[in-house]
Amino acid sequence: MAKLTSRSDDYSKWYNELVVQADLAQHSDVKGCMVIKPYGFAIWEKMRDVLDGMFKETGHQNAYFPLFIPKSYMSKEAAHVEGFAKECAVVTHYRLMNDPNGKGVVVDPDARLEEELIVRPTSETIIWNTYKNWIQSYRDLPILVNQWANVVRWEMRTRLFLRTAEFLWQEGHTAHATKEEAVAETEQMLRVYADFAENWMAMPVVKGVKTESERFAGAEDTHCIEALMQDGKALQAGTSHFLGQNFAKAFDVKFQPKEGKMDYVWATSWGVSTRLMGALIMTHSDDKGLVLPPKLAPIHAVFVPIYKGDEQLAQIREKGEAICADLRKAGLTVKLDDDDSKRSGWKFAEYELKGVPVRIAMGPRDMENGTVEIARRDTGEKELVPLDKAAAHVAALMDEIQDKLVNKARTYRANHTTKVDDWDTFKDVLENKGGFIEAHWDGTPETEDKIKNETKATIRCIPYDSIEEQGKCVYTGNPSRRRVLFAKAY
Amino acid sequence: MAKLTSRSDDYSKWYNELVVQADLAQHSDVKGCMVIKPYGFAIWEKMRDVLDGMFKETGHQNAYFPLFIPKSYMSKEAAHVEGFAKECAVVTHYRLMNDPNGKGVVVDPDARLEEELIVRPTSETIIWNTYKNWIQSYRDLPILVNQWANVVRWEMRTRLFLRTAEFLWQEGHTAHATKEEAVAETEQMLRVYADFAENWMAMPVVKGVKTESERFAGAEDTHCIEALMQDGKALQAGTSHFLGQNFAKAFDVKFQPKEGKMDYVWATSWGVSTRLMGALIMTHSDDKGLVLPPKLAPIHAVFVPIYKGDEQLAQIREKGEAICADLRKAGLTVKLDDDDSKRSGWKFAEYELKGVPVRIAMGPRDMENGTVEIARRDTGEKELVPLDKAAAHVAALMDEIQDKLVNKARTYRANHTTKVDDWDTFKDVLENKGGFIEAHWDGTPETEDKIKNETKATIRCIPYDSIEEQGKCVYTGNPSRRRVLFAKAY
Repeated sequence: MAKLTSRSDDYSKWYNELVVQADLAQHSDVKGCMVIKPYGFAIWEKMRDVLDGMFKETGHQNAYFPLFIPKSYMSKEAAHVEGFAKECAVVTHYRLMNDPNGKGVVVDPDARLEEELIVRPTSETIIWNTYKNWIQSYRDLPILVNQWANVVRWEMRTRLFLRTAEFLWQEGHTAHATKEEAVAETEQMLRVYADFAENWMAMPVVKGVKTESERFAGAEDTHCIEALMQDGKALQAGTSHFLGQNFAKAFDVKFQPKEGKMDYVWATSWGVSTRLMGALIMTHSDDKGLVLPPKLAPIHAVFVPIYKGDEQLAQIREKGEAICADLRKAGLTVKLDDDDSKRSGWKFAEYELKGVPVRIAMGPRDMENGTVEIARRDTGEKELVPLDKAAAHVAALMDEIQDKLVNKARTYRANHTTKVDDWDTFKDVLENKGGFIEAHWDGTPETEDKIKNETKATIRCIPYDSIEEQGKCVYTGNPSRRRVLFAKAY
Repeated sequence: MAKLTSRSDDYSKWYNELVVQADLAQHSDVKGCMVIKPYGFAIWEKMRDVLDGMFKETGHQNAYFPLFIPKSYMSKEAAHVEGFAKECAVVTHYRLMNDPNGKGVVVDPDARLEEELIVRPTSETIIWNTYKNWIQSYRDLPILVNQWANVVRWEMRTRLFLRTAEFLWQEGHTAHATKEEAVAETEQMLRVYADFAENWMAMPVVKGVKTESERFAGAEDTHCIEALMQDGKALQAGTSHFLGQNFAKAFDVKFQPKEGKMDYVWATSWGVSTRLMGALIMTHSDDKGLVLPPKLAPIHAVFVPIYKGDEQLAQIREKGEAICADLRKAGLTVKLDDDDSKRSGWKFAEYELKGVPVRIAMGPRDMENGTVEIARRDTGEKELVPLDKAAAHVAALMDEIQDKLVNKARTYRANHTTKVDDWDTFKDVLENKGGFIEAHWDGTPETEDKIKNETKATIRCIPYDSIEEQGKCVYTGNPSRRRVLFAKAY
């Protein structure tokens, strides 16, 4: 197994190597598309199942809409087309034929589609075209629907999980009778995302609202959660959009209210994607490999026997199986690795690379003493624990590790969030310390743009909890009423 | 609500109306693509979760492979290209641009792909191209991977769930060191499908092997489960393919065995799709609408209060909530429908249409007598049951209905499976009685083809349990060693 590049040597290289070596994903031969390997997919599956449960708890149902969107739909919402219709996969034909000049197959020129189809980059248009027929009166509202799907946005420069041409996500699309209800839904779903990020991914996030220039194409307001990675760059981990009546107007979706005259329907959409895998990896992992919060780990603990000969193995395995059985009863997923083609040192490194939260090792001396060695992946700490206390100890470690990880990430973020009031300090902090910068901004897209061009820092969001205060824009000195959050970002 | 066409009047129309009226699915504006509505998707989700659990029980893991397949991959396996490369969606461009001549967007002619991409109709080629890098030695085998995905096969004539251009499915793709192991896997997964069909869908199936002409393109053997619909037509509900070394050879996937020299890897693939929804509907439903086996019903029981005025409603609701709470404790999903904008008669029809297995109704007289009326969806039988026994009664009905449905379907199939030994009877049974025909066949594709052309009947399979016996081909009179199963099919 090749040694991982360290984070301090080359953070980006460390990430790329880690994703591949820990068997999470790999690039495919199809440009920009990834293969999510079984171990990586098992983590995504856990994330998906938890999120799906949260969506259902808040009254949503799943459905499925077509992969293809007629080209003309994309142009119906003016802002949306600018944002999405450009870099996308276009289906123009529906048949191949044997190559008349030789081997293989070629596109049949007679099988050209009358109207080209776009592989969905996001589904607002096809869904609102469908909702048109579902909605007549206020009795048909709200519609609270989510879909788990693959989407495609053609990308020239891709990175596993963080930016790929095809990715997996969920997209919620809701329809409401009033603006208030739609705004409340937008905010509710952002809270769901923040809850998931903090309590499952052990990843603290800032909740906030995007500036106009960072908004989703077609939204009136984009709410987001922003996380901070270990290299000091921010990562947008989820968005929830208040779409106003924009898509209802574009697709002519009106309803009869309880009182009054026909009106357009109010909309939201919200999504998270396999990008969360990248965020999870970069929040916790270290130079030995993946570190996973126990709540999302496919394997919670591994038991590794250290032995010479079959007889010793049999004795140790018996003890190991008893511990594993107890842990399974406690609801944990456990593996006993007695593969005799690998040495225990190799196994230790392998499970560290894969981020298994706890390793239980037992050798001949442990047999004599009636103990096992329990090692935490997050801190590397090892402890000798009596056999009869081992299962309870490991089970308790799960909560402890989960808490420790989120607290560590919170501390990192606190240490890398800097209040800045002048332009030189802004550039200095950005360059030399990184992280979030809380600074005043004059509220104009022009200033935002200039800051971005000069420093690559963008406004990640206007935090929900930003305090109203008098201040001066860090760039222009013009008056400002609240600080916003700047960072370089993924 | 429009009344359903009856099955005897027009089975096909009944099916189409039922799917739409019961809110299962609808056609989209994109030719051949369907929208799976929340209620239909809730059933599919249950099917998916149960199957996924069965796959994991048998040692499989999920993964995800790209949506797009380079055109050249399709031609690498000779039989596969004939079967799949023809009617498919072809991506030729990766960008749109503003129409220089006016409104909307057009395909950017400069953004033509060097090699066209096919939207996956099935994933053997892209997956075996990936396995090539996963497999070096016998230690890397077996690979037991499944993926849940959308696939596209361009279809001119589509029917909701049964035949759509895009559909959802799972595809298992396994790699093995020996032929025996791959054959065992192929058979194991067919048994998993049969188990699911019979014990969850309440749909009896015949397990068997396809004839050469009905085989999957690229398989050495295709195993299948065949179900019988209420109109006497067969439906292929799942297939499991032994692929031999065909794909390993096409993609040059070799491994070092424990002993001996490098060899090609052995493969299987197996899948079921949203077509199972069509099979489920057509196996059990009646002229009032959907009938669902309780194990796959999104709602097990509905409580409908019958009342005049708010006071009466409050009293009845209190009793209803107690029953619902007890049923939820028993693990059932229950709905109490106190919507005052709908009359109870309308609700009764609605829940019948949607196939809710049990309806619990309570009116003022029931309040006086301390009873509820419990109605079974499958038989229509109603019973007055004392309040304190209601929950236990409903819970017990779930098993009873599940059993009754599978037994009813078994009886129907037994009554519609006919041994036939001469050609006139063959045609007569096919035309006037329908169902499965057990008949001798001389084993040649020519005869199979002639029978198909004359009668539209195909050989559904050579059943696992067919008995070796001397006989004469029902069409040519040539000798035959076992009966095969004929039917008209979906």
